Amino acid sequence: MTTICGYSTEEYLARVVKFHGNPAPGLLIGGFMVDMAMRERPEGEFFDVLCETSVCLPDAVQLLTPCTYGNGWLKVVDIGRFAITVFEKYSGKGVRVHLDASKLDDYPEIKAWFFRLKTKKEQDQEKLLAEILGAGARILAASSVQVDGKHVGKKKGGPTVLCPKCGEAYPVKSGNTCLACQGEILYK
Amino acid sequence: MTTICGYSTEEYLARVVKFHGNPAPGLLIGGFMVDMAMRERPEGEFFDVLCETSVCLPDAVQLLTPCTYGNGWLKVVDIGRFAITVFEKYSGKGVRVHLDASKLDDYPEIKAWFFRLKTKKEQDQEKLLAEILGAGARILAASSVQVDGKHVGKKKGGPTVLCPKCGEAYPVKSGNTCLACQGEILYK
Repeated sequence: MTTICGYSTEEYLARVVKFHGNPAPGLLIGGFMVDMAMRERPEGEFFDVLCETSVCLPDAVQLLTPCTYGNGWLKVVDIGRFAITVFEKYSGKGVRVHLDASKLDDYPEIKAWFFRLKTKKEQDQEKLLAEILGAGARILAASSVQVDGKHVGKKKGGPTVLCPKCGEAYPVKSGNTCLACQGEILYK
Repeated sequence: MTTICGYSTEEYLARVVKFHGNPAPGLLIGGFMVDMAMRERPEGEFFDVLCETSVCLPDAVQLLTPCTYGNGWLKVVDIGRFAITVFEKYSGKGVRVHLDASKLDDYPEIKAWFFRLKTKKEQDQEKLLAEILGAGARILAASSVQVDGKHVGKKKGGPTVLCPKCGEAYPVKSGNTCLACQGEILYK
């Protein structure tokens, strides 16, 4: 039976719908990616995950590993590539898994979805999910990587002080005022 | 009985530990923040959340609302302020809740935690969590805000093409090559 990190595909999809809101194709493929990366990861006790897109994929990581956005063990560098790396927390040694577009010729629905050749309305969602389940790890590729130092290890937060302009607490490393008062516009 | 978005505090803390890995003080305070923002939010059917820090707080949002990092309904702009805004998805009208440092004088453990006056080892975790539970929403402040247009509404992804340098798929809006090939260093 095909499993995703120990879950049946039905169980995993039910968890996806509960957390993510819908059975997104990217999360189903993402499940196989996390599964492959977890199986092929190097030796070690503690692992972080680097995700190269902010769309969909981070939720597969959050559902299937102890790494979440808020605990910092999931790091997102949004360069728009559909790839994750599971790496040993302190050495940065890891395995990167990405969706290999060269393997999509036998999977027209996945290809159309991945390259956005069809609108969401034109997609046959059922056929697409069935193709993804049929493909499993066949459309993926894994490689050993060494994560760059700037993404490895725990970042210290440093002291917190009150911003002299807005009066709210902020990390002093940001400068003499908080970043909102330095011009990062969030509100009108 | 004190509840957090319908959960008892015990139930909520159990969910925090399961998802986040430990009963982080920031997630307990974050629970009260999400609860307050959800109660005081304006009329509407669909809501997004803007979180002003990447530390801890995003996980409270992901546990208590339909908004996750991967589905894009949770937006993080990490300026290091301990604040969230729940806003109507299309109008940007919302309510912002932050931890009000001026209200911490009666809560020495929370104050020491928030301003990092004690190391993690020096903290009395049990006393800290008890103080947070006792304080509840009393250390928070809410205000009506209008979220800036750049954080409101759905961002379209645009076409995906193969990068001529690395051969991987990337969003064409990034430029002639993917951002990794433009110099964003992830791996050695």
